[in-house]
Amino acid sequence: MTTNRRSLLTMGGVLSLGLTQPARAQSADRRLGYAIVGLGQYADVILPRFADCRHSRVTALVSGSMDKARQYGARYGVPEGGLYTYETFDTIRNNPDVDIVYVILPNGMHHEYTVRAAAAGKHVMCEKPMANTAAEAEQMIAACRAAGSKLMIGYRCRFEPSNREAIRVARSAELGPTRIITAEHGFNIGDPTQWRLNRALAGGGSLMDIGIYSLQAARYLTGEEPVSVSAVESTDRSDIRFREVEDTINFQLSFPSGVIADCVSTYGSHHNRYRIVGTQGWLDAESATAYEGNRLRLHRDGRTIDHPAPDAGQNQFSAMLDHLSQCVMTDSEPLVAGEEGLRDMRIIEAIYLAARERRTVML
Amino acid sequence: MTTNRRSLLTMGGVLSLGLTQPARAQSADRRLGYAIVGLGQYADVILPRFADCRHSRVTALVSGSMDKARQYGARYGVPEGGLYTYETFDTIRNNPDVDIVYVILPNGMHHEYTVRAAAAGKHVMCEKPMANTAAEAEQMIAACRAAGSKLMIGYRCRFEPSNREAIRVARSAELGPTRIITAEHGFNIGDPTQWRLNRALAGGGSLMDIGIYSLQAARYLTGEEPVSVSAVESTDRSDIRFREVEDTINFQLSFPSGVIADCVSTYGSHHNRYRIVGTQGWLDAESATAYEGNRLRLHRDGRTIDHPAPDAGQNQFSAMLDHLSQCVMTDSEPLVAGEEGLRDMRIIEAIYLAARERRTVML
Repeated sequence: MTTNRRSLLTMGGVLSLGLTQPARAQSADRRLGYAIVGLGQYADVILPRFADCRHSRVTALVSGSMDKARQYGARYGVPEGGLYTYETFDTIRNNPDVDIVYVILPNGMHHEYTVRAAAAGKHVMCEKPMANTAAEAEQMIAACRAAGSKLMIGYRCRFEPSNREAIRVARSAELGPTRIITAEHGFNIGDPTQWRLNRALAGGGSLMDIGIYSLQAARYLTGEEPVSVSAVESTDRSDIRFREVEDTINFQLSFPSGVIADCVSTYGSHHNRYRIVGTQGWLDAESATAYEGNRLRLHRDGRTIDHPAPDAGQNQFSAMLDHLSQCVMTDSEPLVAGEEGLRDMRIIEAIYLAARERRTVML
Repeated sequence: MTTNRRSLLTMGGVLSLGLTQPARAQSADRRLGYAIVGLGQYADVILPRFADCRHSRVTALVSGSMDKARQYGARYGVPEGGLYTYETFDTIRNNPDVDIVYVILPNGMHHEYTVRAAAAGKHVMCEKPMANTAAEAEQMIAACRAAGSKLMIGYRCRFEPSNREAIRVARSAELGPTRIITAEHGFNIGDPTQWRLNRALAGGGSLMDIGIYSLQAARYLTGEEPVSVSAVESTDRSDIRFREVEDTINFQLSFPSGVIADCVSTYGSHHNRYRIVGTQGWLDAESATAYEGNRLRLHRDGRTIDHPAPDAGQNQFSAMLDHLSQCVMTDSEPLVAGEEGLRDMRIIEAIYLAARERRTVML
């Protein structure tokens, strides 16, 4: 990566705003370097997306197995010097090619690796859910703030064209004021030995992993924060998959404007949809939050029609990766910063409380 | 209406079962006579359907206005002797052409006219919701039982082909065990002076009128009774329409099998759908409970296809009317008897309680 005249000028401009390390000033032309921590299934989804990035590249890989790290390094062009194990992870501070650490580990490890990444002077992208608890999330925000690191949560849907269009429609007057949102997310979970079914690693069950999409959707479609929540859980504890975490936990959110969101969260059946219902019609998304193939239908004046989202010119994953790079380069706050992840964690804890105590919990 | 040899034989057969008045023995060929009480909008939907009935005909009309009764009488072939006002209604006992009284009045009048119809020795079809309260419903059941009258609630969906097919699929193993049901019913209510917005006449708001379809669907699709309910209300009391009754009241039902039903009830936006989600796929109905044009789609193995219901050979209204006639003729219990209406009324009262006290109510 060479530093050209324009980038020097840009760096000067940014530096004049008083920025210092580790909120490093960056050229608009530079591609920031990502370290991917955790080479599991979702890393396999993320890594190929750097090819479509304009401001991001992968420069380091962190895995429990150096053999695996080398295999991935060969595939994605990461040299031996960019390969780390969890034991050597903290030395990443000495790697100037790494600007951002992307934590794609089980939920229960988000806190530790976010804090360690910040301590190493790196910015952080952390997968959802942000942590196992709201208390952990608060500590992660504090650690990044103290280190001068940006912290963003991997809420990819905010960078996905259908979801962006749904937000636009929901907050416009096109369907009249929104009255009701229904949001359903779930899948029939398999392998009972996976980390998602282990409380220490997952923090909870379907709500932490997939129901959080229903929660996010209700929040980003309204642009409001819920004032109360009620919830009902249904888990067959004799099912070997659900010894430690919940299966189904459906919840109702009440928003200040009077909107009610009815949300499904389950590990028992497939759901990927939401609907925004206004006084004059509705917008339906199904699939709503998939990796690709999301589809909108709009109903108004008795007719239902396909409602394609405008082409964004970039897939949701690459756009998300580039967004944090741009935030670092311009020292601006990510659209979905740590505080956004913390809001979800607090509501998730309220949902669990409401289900457990069989009462509406005020937020 | 002539009595032929076969009907005489059939009457003899039924009489030998020990039937006496007012559970009159009837020929399988005979068309029982209905009195329609209340000539409002829904009577306009029902009256033309007698043309497609095989066991039912309209023989009397009851209205606040004799002029209106005469107009309708001319249109539907009801002679002057079959026309009544609310003041003369009780003399219907002397009309041998009336077997069944169909109460299509505002909810708050269901109790009075069901009790008076039973006292007049007639069988009763009563519109949904059965009454303003569960206590009224209990009295209606007792009055009909004491009079030996059949009592059926006008739950037309149980006679509608798409709903019957949905019940079959939901209770079969075709989509795996049902895990989650979502059911949404609502419309954007207009004229603020209508009886539906008057608490004394309507008993409540959207839940009594349209949310009851979501409740019914959850119950008939599972074939189970809910064990608990939670609910959230959202009503803008500054809206002139909602001075006396609720706008939106969404509720969650928990069933013994572990199924959760998330139900929408609203007077603020249009909803007419439900979805049954099993471990292996889903069946979606939209429109679900309309007068006509209901449509089913089935999702399985990653594909969504139209799922047409078998042709029933008769529309839901005529089938419903004939069902009660046949129950009278064969002295059998209606599919949706007064007890079924009472079950809904008890759950409706629990939904109101749950919303008011912000807690899960056990049933």
